[in-house]
Amino acid sequence: MAEAADKLKDLVVSEDQKPKKEKKPKEKKEKKEAKPQQQKKKIEGAALIGIDVAKEDDLGEWYQQVITKGQMISYYDVAGCYILEPASYAIWESIKDWFDTQIKTLKVRNAYFPIFISADNLQREKEHIEGFAAEVAWVTKGGKSELEKPVAVRPTSETAMYPYFARKIQSHRDLPLKLNQWNNVVRWEFKHPMPFIRSREFLWQEGHTAHLTKEEAGAEVMQILDWYADVYQKLLAVPVVKGTKTENEKFPGADYTTTIEGFIPATGRGIQAATSHCLGQHFSKMFNIVVEDPAAKEAGKADKIHVWQNSWGLTTRSIGVMILTHGDNRGLVTPPRVAEIQVIIVPVGVTAKTTPEAKEDLYGKVKQIHDDLLSVGVRVETDYREGYSPGWKFNDWEMKGIPLRIEFGPKDAEKGVVTTSRRDLPSKELARGETAVTDLKEAIPKLLDTIQNDMFERADKEYRAHRKQITNWDDFVPALNGKNVVLVPHCEGEKCEDQVKELSARKEEGDTTTEDAKAPAMGAKSLCIPFEQPEGIVKGETKCINPNCTATAKAWVLFGRSY
Amino acid sequence: MAEAADKLKDLVVSEDQKPKKEKKPKEKKEKKEAKPQQQKKKIEGAALIGIDVAKEDDLGEWYQQVITKGQMISYYDVAGCYILEPASYAIWESIKDWFDTQIKTLKVRNAYFPIFISADNLQREKEHIEGFAAEVAWVTKGGKSELEKPVAVRPTSETAMYPYFARKIQSHRDLPLKLNQWNNVVRWEFKHPMPFIRSREFLWQEGHTAHLTKEEAGAEVMQILDWYADVYQKLLAVPVVKGTKTENEKFPGADYTTTIEGFIPATGRGIQAATSHCLGQHFSKMFNIVVEDPAAKEAGKADKIHVWQNSWGLTTRSIGVMILTHGDNRGLVTPPRVAEIQVIIVPVGVTAKTTPEAKEDLYGKVKQIHDDLLSVGVRVETDYREGYSPGWKFNDWEMKGIPLRIEFGPKDAEKGVVTTSRRDLPSKELARGETAVTDLKEAIPKLLDTIQNDMFERADKEYRAHRKQITNWDDFVPALNGKNVVLVPHCEGEKCEDQVKELSARKEEGDTTTEDAKAPAMGAKSLCIPFEQPEGIVKGETKCINPNCTATAKAWVLFGRSY
Repeated sequence: MAEAADKLKDLVVSEDQKPKKEKKPKEKKEKKEAKPQQQKKKIEGAALIGIDVAKEDDLGEWYQQVITKGQMISYYDVAGCYILEPASYAIWESIKDWFDTQIKTLKVRNAYFPIFISADNLQREKEHIEGFAAEVAWVTKGGKSELEKPVAVRPTSETAMYPYFARKIQSHRDLPLKLNQWNNVVRWEFKHPMPFIRSREFLWQEGHTAHLTKEEAGAEVMQILDWYADVYQKLLAVPVVKGTKTENEKFPGADYTTTIEGFIPATGRGIQAATSHCLGQHFSKMFNIVVEDPAAKEAGKADKIHVWQNSWGLTTRSIGVMILTHGDNRGLVTPPRVAEIQVIIVPVGVTAKTTPEAKEDLYGKVKQIHDDLLSVGVRVETDYREGYSPGWKFNDWEMKGIPLRIEFGPKDAEKGVVTTSRRDLPSKELARGETAVTDLKEAIPKLLDTIQNDMFERADKEYRAHRKQITNWDDFVPALNGKNVVLVPHCEGEKCEDQVKELSARKEEGDTTTEDAKAPAMGAKSLCIPFEQPEGIVKGETKCINPNCTATAKAWVLFGRSY
Repeated sequence: MAEAADKLKDLVVSEDQKPKKEKKPKEKKEKKEAKPQQQKKKIEGAALIGIDVAKEDDLGEWYQQVITKGQMISYYDVAGCYILEPASYAIWESIKDWFDTQIKTLKVRNAYFPIFISADNLQREKEHIEGFAAEVAWVTKGGKSELEKPVAVRPTSETAMYPYFARKIQSHRDLPLKLNQWNNVVRWEFKHPMPFIRSREFLWQEGHTAHLTKEEAGAEVMQILDWYADVYQKLLAVPVVKGTKTENEKFPGADYTTTIEGFIPATGRGIQAATSHCLGQHFSKMFNIVVEDPAAKEAGKADKIHVWQNSWGLTTRSIGVMILTHGDNRGLVTPPRVAEIQVIIVPVGVTAKTTPEAKEDLYGKVKQIHDDLLSVGVRVETDYREGYSPGWKFNDWEMKGIPLRIEFGPKDAEKGVVTTSRRDLPSKELARGETAVTDLKEAIPKLLDTIQNDMFERADKEYRAHRKQITNWDDFVPALNGKNVVLVPHCEGEKCEDQVKELSARKEEGDTTTEDAKAPAMGAKSLCIPFEQPEGIVKGETKCINPNCTATAKAWVLFGRSY
């Protein structure tokens, strides 16, 4: 199977493209002309440095170039595994810091459970193991010896943690028990891998909590989902839709799954962004996590009740969604709140004719600008590299997605200003501005906030424009083909949902050699039942969108092709 | 082999004792008398709660009770793997925060490399793979399919990372390259496992750097070692000896290994605390990590030079060394700097006769004390639990190792003081003190500093008292038997070192069913060649301590039985 997976061609991450030598930007120049880009737009500046294929022409190739040249990902010689380079790991650390602070307010405590799970425990919850069995990696050898009992590498830790919950929870006084871990998990997928989006190993946090009541558990599920939405919307500037998963799509073993669903405009596909599950009592029954009912005890009885459990997870996939959302034909565009470097200062106007004294004077002023920004908490670097032109440097930092560039040369010094250039705006005219050196400490943090907000607003507008509310089946597939996700009246029936997927798939044609090429032929699955429900569904009257379904609609359900 | 390991009896972590039900303190009471402690000291207070075996009588059983009842570790159903509970994980997080801040000053950047390593890469450096082959865990199955090529679970990441180094380092301008990762590694050991000290999976950081020159690499090795010593000495209050490993004991594939060596007074055994390796050019030659020599280039030549590499690691073992060093017969003793909770406030003097108003008044004052301490950065909690006596609470928090307890009752309120009780001092008289409520914000942080310093000073004094400088072979084994490590003149010969181990082992007798029981019969290995060398070795004259060795001594070498 691994072999089979290796043979599948995937333009997004072609197996034979890795581990390829990731050339330095400087060396790229010579190689450029080798690859004819037939019928593809010529990217401005591409001859100099950078990304040489347009996002709108070939998303797979574009993504690969952006993440490697932007130094987020480097390829690795185990299929489906990727190296998170410092720039992307720094984004993960900033997500981690923020989210960890939030959950501490709920008195969630971090812990660490082993990566290995015994087969016995893994298989205790039936639906759960059915959901994961196909993608569990097994350690069967230690040194040169076969293990008597193979151990599973955790795909998630419910079954690793809940025997512990059963030991620790002896009384209702031990509730709630709230644990979280930041760790790595492995899902040995045989689908097309794609860095960040679908990889065999990924990083995440997984929260696991136990409560006395369903209500308390439910409130936490929603609080966590709100914070997940904040991670995407406020930190990564990526819009999401909150909702509940249908029965077909919920977590294996959960009572219900809440989710935030993102959207990749370039393909028109939805993408699951993070999920917060109420597990109900499924696991507590299997793992025998019980307490005496305090109410029953007062009444002189001794009824045992099974605890109510939640689990919730947010992964490094979030970084991929951010890149796919904001990246453009010059490379990465990183939102200021999570960028490792928020501002890059590039000294300009230094030529062969510049005297050493003039250069020293200029660099002294540059250093002062740098230190001023640092003093107000801006993450700033200065590019003093010799032997590279300012133009080359601009492109280099743009490719890496640094939110704001400051240029400073003798002419700026004379006027007492710096020239700023926003990474998020496409045209030079819009992007450029001037700020008085004396105002920098106030103006730059404000400008970074503006960039952050504008990035979200634009992405949000685009996502809204591509959520089509549809009531007629005839509009369903054309809407998908127009790179939209669709909000439709649906009966919430599990089989009906399968039918919708089948009906919306195009089987007759299409290039099936790559996932992206296949995408237009892909059927739509339900993404979520959004919390925010438009009006228009009359119970018992409004028909389910599926022309073959006789049931009436229960709710507006978001469907789409998806990752 | 796994089976064989499972059959080995180990009192420290007996396989059949886990996953045992970890009883709550309250339920312990009834069970207490069941286990007769023949010839063992009766522990004061043991009848009430807590640890029921003395550290000096049975270290293995004592350790097991201390880590489980102190809620640092919970057992797990995969042999050699343990659950790090929130209290111990919090210590790890505080080590992490501190050390991460230090290495950032060297511009080390965090990244994440996959947990899986291909067999090809793992085997590229010969000595390295020889050192690790016996303990590598292999994933051979994904879902139900056999993998075509099994992948190794990282035991360390040199071979995972260095192909990346080879790609990224193209010019001397790309040097130094300094990466670090905080992750989990797996060494499928078949020796006796012991929580924190020797486990099949553990957490650590691993730094990997590449430099242009040997000197630069060497300076970093020493800087990191200094910080490792600070983690132990300043954070964990555990003394260490800095030195270099002998050829026999250095890291597989390294040029040289520097180390900090700790000491467990209860067994008189040494323990490797953390290591910082200069890998020299061994790996850069195998992985072809080269740059043009900038000096040769200026001279018109084009010589390639292999980069100089370091790797350095600090693990969760550090927490175990801390526990073994400071823990006493009442349980854990945690140094204030790393304690999740530094101060526990216990309201006292509330009886059945206390009026609700008086209680409310007292609790209001307690809350004020709590908030005052919080406002000056003290990590403080208050124990308001109903239904437990103050005495029970005292024991409970002592078992958990909270550095300082504050008692506050109506009598204290009248006098305007709080009663303090230090966890680190053995007698009640020494431990107790009074502090004016109005002084708390200044006095408590100072008192915590005093506790921290005193803990280190006591441990340091003890370690010094147990490092015996010896020149006569006849004193060697008796010194070991007296629970010492020994500093001896040695020739640094590899075979001679093996001989010393053999000669110092006692074969004729002893209980061999458990590691601790076997320890007195264990031979001594070299721990390190301390940087700090006493006088007394005359080159070419002073004889090596080994009576069968004809060579002269090169240095004072620290030998000892060890973990």
